[in-house]
Amino acid sequence: MDNIGIYPGTFDPPTNGHFDLIERSSKIFGKVIVAVATNPSKKTLITIKKRVSLLKEMVKHLENVEVSSFSGLLVDYARSVGATVIVRGLRAVSDFEYEFQMAHMNKKLYPDLDTVFMMTGEKYFYVSSNIIKEIVSLGGDVKDLVHECVETELKKIYRIK
Amino acid sequence: MDNIGIYPGTFDPPTNGHFDLIERSSKIFGKVIVAVATNPSKKTLITIKKRVSLLKEMVKHLENVEVSSFSGLLVDYARSVGATVIVRGLRAVSDFEYEFQMAHMNKKLYPDLDTVFMMTGEKYFYVSSNIIKEIVSLGGDVKDLVHECVETELKKIYRIK
Amino acid sequence: MDNIGIYPGTFDPPTNGHFDLIERSSKIFGKVIVAVATNPSKKTLITIKKRVSLLKEMVKHLENVEVSSFSGLLVDYARSVGATVIVRGLRAVSDFEYEFQMAHMNKKLYPDLDTVFMMTGEKYFYVSSNIIKEIVSLGGDVKDLVHECVETELKKIYRIK
Amino acid sequence: MDNIGIYPGTFDPPTNGHFDLIERSSKIFGKVIVAVATNPSKKTLITIKKRVSLLKEMVKHLENVEVSSFSGLLVDYARSVGATVIVRGLRAVSDFEYEFQMAHMNKKLYPDLDTVFMMTGEKYFYVSSNIIKEIVSLGGDVKDLVHECVETELKKIYRIK
Amino acid sequence: MDNIGIYPGTFDPPTNGHFDLIERSSKIFGKVIVAVATNPSKKTLITIKKRVSLLKEMVKHLENVEVSSFSGLLVDYARSVGATVIVRGLRAVSDFEYEFQMAHMNKKLYPDLDTVFMMTGEKYFYVSSNIIKEIVSLGGDVKDLVHECVETELKKIYRIK
Amino acid sequence: MDNIGIYPGTFDPPTNGHFDLIERSSKIFGKVIVAVATNPSKKTLITIKKRVSLLKEMVKHLENVEVSSFSGLLVDYARSVGATVIVRGLRAVSDFEYEFQMAHMNKKLYPDLDTVFMMTGEKYFYVSSNIIKEIVSLGGDVKDLVHECVETELKKIYRIK
Repeated sequence: MDNIGIYPGTFDPPTNGHFDLIERSSKIFGKVIVAVATNPSKKTLITIKKRVSLLKEMVKHLENVEVSSFSGLLVDYARSVGATVIVRGLRAVSDFEYEFQMAHMNKKLYPDLDTVFMMTGEKYFYVSSNIIKEIVSLGGDVKDLVHECVETELKKIYRIK
Repeated sequence: MDNIGIYPGTFDPPTNGHFDLIERSSKIFGKVIVAVATNPSKKTLITIKKRVSLLKEMVKHLENVEVSSFSGLLVDYARSVGATVIVRGLRAVSDFEYEFQMAHMNKKLYPDLDTVFMMTGEKYFYVSSNIIKEIVSLGGDVKDLVHECVETELKKIYRIK
Repeated sequence: MDNIGIYPGTFDPPTNGHFDLIERSSKIFGKVIVAVATNPSKKTLITIKKRVSLLKEMVKHLENVEVSSFSGLLVDYARSVGATVIVRGLRAVSDFEYEFQMAHMNKKLYPDLDTVFMMTGEKYFYVSSNIIKEIVSLGGDVKDLVHECVETELKKIYRIK
Repeated sequence: MDNIGIYPGTFDPPTNGHFDLIERSSKIFGKVIVAVATNPSKKTLITIKKRVSLLKEMVKHLENVEVSSFSGLLVDYARSVGATVIVRGLRAVSDFEYEFQMAHMNKKLYPDLDTVFMMTGEKYFYVSSNIIKEIVSLGGDVKDLVHECVETELKKIYRIK
Repeated sequence: MDNIGIYPGTFDPPTNGHFDLIERSSKIFGKVIVAVATNPSKKTLITIKKRVSLLKEMVKHLENVEVSSFSGLLVDYARSVGATVIVRGLRAVSDFEYEFQMAHMNKKLYPDLDTVFMMTGEKYFYVSSNIIKEIVSLGGDVKDLVHECVETELKKIYRIK
Repeated sequence: MDNIGIYPGTFDPPTNGHFDLIERSSKIFGKVIVAVATNPSKKTLITIKKRVSLLKEMVKHLENVEVSSFSGLLVDYARSVGATVIVRGLRAVSDFEYEFQMAHMNKKLYPDLDTVFMMTGEKYFYVSSNIIKEIVSLGGDVKDLVHECVETELKKIYRIK
């Protein structure tokens, strides 16, 4: 009986920092579910459908990783898929405080579900979805920082605009 | 084939914050090894032998938890016992930065060994081994903050002194 | 001649963390004025009138606590009601920096008015108005984290929407 | 052959904290270019043209300081004007993390361009463009915190509104 | 019935930053007791007797301020003198975390005693007892940063050595 | 007339993180003086003479870099060698606060001398002199993290011990 880790996020877009964490957590947990949040009150650049398909493309060679979307409370979704642990990445002190609060809140809402954190890889600690979008929108190159399919998608979106 | 987590520390003394983390990680990993560091350059109040026996007393009801001591590099010891992941607690921003550096250094020394972090329980985030020692040495009461056997040991040490 | 403390905030909604601070500061200062900001440039979920009435309901048993609303600069309002000290809660490092800047700015604007800070109670340090709204909007339970009248109001608002 | 420092920002509005940094960096570098960002996705209170003219007024007595505006990636503009170093101010921990990430990202995009940081003067560490706007909009006095021409402009804008 | 604030510290030596806080808190609380810690396990440069007399010299014009020394737990001493609130200064994020932990620990040990924090004055936020000692020991001038009697004492100590 | 930057430190031992900063600052300033502190009150593993010779070996190919030792106040030494700017590295939030305080104190002691900060390279942000010493003392490999001559020296020291 293996542990199931759930790795939630907005992934707008997914970066190589996200991928690094998915790959590393897939070696620690029996199964990893990448859970893309569909929060209607949060505007995203990329549709939920597209974000899921980009992540599926990125992780297709990792056998114990699944990608899905969810709405509502993360703890409710985690419970419904039998997840035993939430996996989150930590990049900086500001992440730390928000994550700290969320981890305690989630434990309050569902005491059986704990959270573990992994440090973002040293090559990616300065990479965030927002910085990626800003750079592409201003014509910059993000080749080493996102998967090829993400780069293609972002270029398509910003050219149209 | 289960994952083996190693939870290293000085545990001088072990607190209820440490215990909370051991108990929670024992639900996430197949086996948890509590590894007490015997660093000759670091002065401790309690002998290594006693720290190990206090921890053994504290975790005796947790079936998949072992307590042992180690010297030398943590990554070498972790490798020798087949650990696949280091478990560390995070309490505050200052912990975060030191832990961040150690996690990257350990990955540099032994790339197959990753680190996961867990947040200290809300009831224990202000409890550290140093504060416990200070309070007992000044005559204060730490009943809810350490195991009974730890309280007894600390009182014995400070009375003698 | 007692000191008058003013505890300003948006309180959208007021939480049990806010209440904990009001109750504790009411034991330190002769009188505490809970001052709800009516900042027209900041969108709130709950109307100013309702926020004031929720707080009044929450503190009705505390004899030396008053609730009022204000617009304009806090220091001008504080001066007009004879307050001698601003009371603020601190939850995390990020709070700290913003509060640090505001305390110095307020002292610059009105040198006679100082600010004191109190730590958020350990049970509430992960509770913020924004997290409360997010959880209720996603169907989660916040019973222990806000007053009953606040829970009722939030459920009414999100059901309507 | 002197070094050219580029000091980028939104300057909406420029404050005395900005001016302090410009003046101090003009003593360290052969030439300093104050580069005002025209980011169409970021709403500003003051037009780009006006922000440039306010800064020109503020630095007119500093011989080796120029003011200009730019759009697109900062590193591309820096390269086009022959800048060898980006100059940034640091006020607080939260600045630090964002700046840390941007400095590494800019080095990734253009490895020859390094970033140096200077601490905000002690008299201005609590002054930010946003706080200045908030105070003026609420009728407060910012005389010692911004240049006269900035105060005049802000009063004009908020009176109209 | 006025509130009694207790302002504890090592004061080795007392600085103008400490004095600023004492003066400001003396305007907020009915009485302020400056409590100098005599912790035998902590080596100090200046004797406890001398630290008390330096502080007495510094505050002799403040009518509602007393200086005394204490040993043992702060909360026990605070209780014995009828203090209702602990006053502490905050200078930086690293202060914040330690103070946060101590405030919660003290509340755990003595629930009726709360802690309030005040920000160090902008002119003194970079002044600490350790930096003062380091500078004087290396021959630097600390005239504006400590009281005259402290400067005299430090020069005497370091000349002898 | 070029600017002279002074890069002070204990360098016990110098790391590749230090070297990265020296190399990068040598491109920004006309001349860089690496100033090794001989603080008699601070115990070091490596003698001052050896630390200077290790640094000289490391920077021998950088034409505009000099290495020297100093005692007393940094600002006095900087003045004596005509330095116009202090260069410091920033690695983490905890560095930031200490550096912030020192930069302001140095400006107080010698107003003409400013401080600039550079971010530690991403490959070295987890490398500190203390961690290097700890790892070598425990038998670990630090080949990519320090210069060959430093590794040789450290091995010699720890074997003897």
